[in-house]
Amino acid sequence: MILEVAILNIKAGQNEAFEADFRKAQAIIAAIKGFVSISVRQCIENENQYLLLVEWERLENHTIDFRQSSEYQEWKALLHHYYDPFPVVEHYDRIIVE
Amino acid sequence: MILEVAILNIKAGQNEAFEADFRKAQAIIAAIKGFVSISVRQCIENENQYLLLVEWERLENHTIDFRQSSEYQEWKALLHHYYDPFPVVEHYDRIIVE
Repeated sequence: MILEVAILNIKAGQNEAFEADFRKAQAIIAAIKGFVSISVRQCIENENQYLLLVEWERLENHTIDFRQSSEYQEWKALLHHYYDPFPVVEHYDRIIVE
Repeated sequence: MILEVAILNIKAGQNEAFEADFRKAQAIIAAIKGFVSISVRQCIENENQYLLLVEWERLENHTIDFRQSSEYQEWKALLHHYYDPFPVVEHYDRIIVE
């Protein structure tokens, strides 16, 4: 299992629209091969910051099956204009403590 | 439920010792009031980077019950010398998508 992680910083004042569009985008990513789960939560210390966690069966389900799909173009169009700066996306695999 | 999140960057070459000490530190935090769960995973793109996720029942279980405890002094002594830079710790609560 791979955990995709990104801290999402959005432009001020766009929280409501961003959250509504993320709920729409959820159906797009959930249909991709190897998708396991998604969660998006809002930061207590900074209301314009969110944490995105996506579980994938394999790294390539994210980097190839999703990012090279036509569905990713829809995802981008819905969400990418909210971000400032554009987020760094990283992946975690080996569990040290749980 | 509150999710505590930190990206942990450790000094190069100390992975094995850091991971062993984090396994010891797990018992310290798990005994604190309001602790729910912990996970630490290693980053695929950067082997010196880890993701820490801790679930707490309430924010104060972390900020007061843990950080103002004598157990926190043990935690610090075990772990803080590995970090470079010292991590930013943030908390997330409201779930937008799940």
